[in-house]
Amino acid sequence: MFKIPDHQVAGHVAGAGKLGPLVDDSGRFYKPLQDGKRGTEEVSFYESFSSNTQIPEKIRKFFPIFYGTKIMKASTGIEHPHIILQDLVSSRLSPSLMDIKIGARTWAPEASEEYITKCLKKDRQSTSVSLGYRLSGLRVFIGDELGFYKPERDVMRKAGPDDVRLFLMKFVSSNLESELESGSESESKPDCSLAASVYGGDDGILSQLLELKAWFEDQTMYHFYACSLLFMFEKGLTSNPEVKLIDFAHVEEGKGVIDHNFLGGLCSLIKFISEILSDTNDLKNGLIEP
Amino acid sequence: MFKIPDHQVAGHVAGAGKLGPLVDDSGRFYKPLQDGKRGTEEVSFYESFSSNTQIPEKIRKFFPIFYGTKIMKASTGIEHPHIILQDLVSSRLSPSLMDIKIGARTWAPEASEEYITKCLKKDRQSTSVSLGYRLSGLRVFIGDELGFYKPERDVMRKAGPDDVRLFLMKFVSSNLESELESGSESESKPDCSLAASVYGGDDGILSQLLELKAWFEDQTMYHFYACSLLFMFEKGLTSNPEVKLIDFAHVEEGKGVIDHNFLGGLCSLIKFISEILSDTNDLKNGLIEP
Repeated sequence: MFKIPDHQVAGHVAGAGKLGPLVDDSGRFYKPLQDGKRGTEEVSFYESFSSNTQIPEKIRKFFPIFYGTKIMKASTGIEHPHIILQDLVSSRLSPSLMDIKIGARTWAPEASEEYITKCLKKDRQSTSVSLGYRLSGLRVFIGDELGFYKPERDVMRKAGPDDVRLFLMKFVSSNLESELESGSESESKPDCSLAASVYGGDDGILSQLLELKAWFEDQTMYHFYACSLLFMFEKGLTSNPEVKLIDFAHVEEGKGVIDHNFLGGLCSLIKFISEILSDTNDLKNGLIEP
Repeated sequence: MFKIPDHQVAGHVAGAGKLGPLVDDSGRFYKPLQDGKRGTEEVSFYESFSSNTQIPEKIRKFFPIFYGTKIMKASTGIEHPHIILQDLVSSRLSPSLMDIKIGARTWAPEASEEYITKCLKKDRQSTSVSLGYRLSGLRVFIGDELGFYKPERDVMRKAGPDDVRLFLMKFVSSNLESELESGSESESKPDCSLAASVYGGDDGILSQLLELKAWFEDQTMYHFYACSLLFMFEKGLTSNPEVKLIDFAHVEEGKGVIDHNFLGGLCSLIKFISEILSDTNDLKNGLIEP
């Protein structure tokens, strides 16, 4: 009945004796409660958010549905408390996925000195400080036979701002076969052939990000530290691009202040995606050289 | 010919044997070059910015005009290089001024470890991390006889988010006489009687901040670390509210990335000012209790 998710791009992966999320056939995702404060704070957030009447419906759709908590046999075989959530990819066959951790700062001001030092180091070594976000996971569907392009975690961890731009381009490209051939990253330029249908359009990812941005310019209820945006789409006639927010173990009360840390990173990401879109249009219209 | 400016609210103040800015009668402001990299980088910024043809005129007006550099007798009596700038308050008689250092982070990623540690400590102790900005200076004109309300630097340094909101309210209030009486901060609520004419309206401060925000969502040329917004207005029939950017000793190249750190802080400030404005309107319309 329970199985290990096929489409995970970041976070702990369940395995023999390893604690990780499970899914079932009914479209539910079982996330093991993390140790200590993290687990309880993530539950607190879901409880607060799901009962918060001030969340507009058009914003609520960006969050996984929360079905409560349950103590159940974990992927390790041992009983463990789980958060029960909507399985965001259950209706998709071969989704391309990108996990982007938003914010130049992944630590809350109230965190412990030890935790802040640890986070600050990671934020500075990654693109969090420079770009306001960093890539946590990526997989792009290439085809039924070739499967997925999925760069190593280590490659993503070392990515600089230019690499991140390239990954955002690869996410919407159809010429990634060569990436699979050699072990190293390819020299060929991503074609961004899916940019218009995935990033662009009224229902595209950019449009959804702008909707989120408008909410973050106003909402002062929550601060989302170390939270990720998950991008999803499928190759085919209807790519059905979707943006979701995930990972709420470090959400804090906003106390009347907007989440300027999340908002700044979101605006920075919006800028990169807008540029990829407009470059693709210029290329299509012959305004720039390939 | 040269004199010490009357209306300085932050930064080093010139005095006997102390290096500080000077002004002349022709509306020019002479800022002594800071030691080492700071001074040369501030000059580099002004040279780059003043010759940059990609700056829209409606954005250029937010910056002091740059007239070059000059080695001249400083406030100390000794020759010293100065940056010659437009004296932003020369046309004003009794301006109310507020200096707000923008950004949750006042350090550039490329700064030295020692400098980062020092800045991070200040950022965390002040409201920079929590609000995305902190107050560096404030003086509010009360009347010809009573002069100015000018909280001690120490009071501003210790201000938390709620205190900052109160200072932003006091800046546009006419009932600050009681603030002058006791040494401590008064308990009476600022009346925000000037909010509509200073923060509001087509030419008001909020409107100017929104213009700046639109530019920061797009521009990837400069990152403005430890830079301040200066708010100015005058009591009277035409308050003539103005926003300027000042202090460019830590400006870095944007390298194709937006200044999400400045933008986040700016959006947070915009939110507070919008709230003061709408609360004042609600009060006027009897929608909330005084």
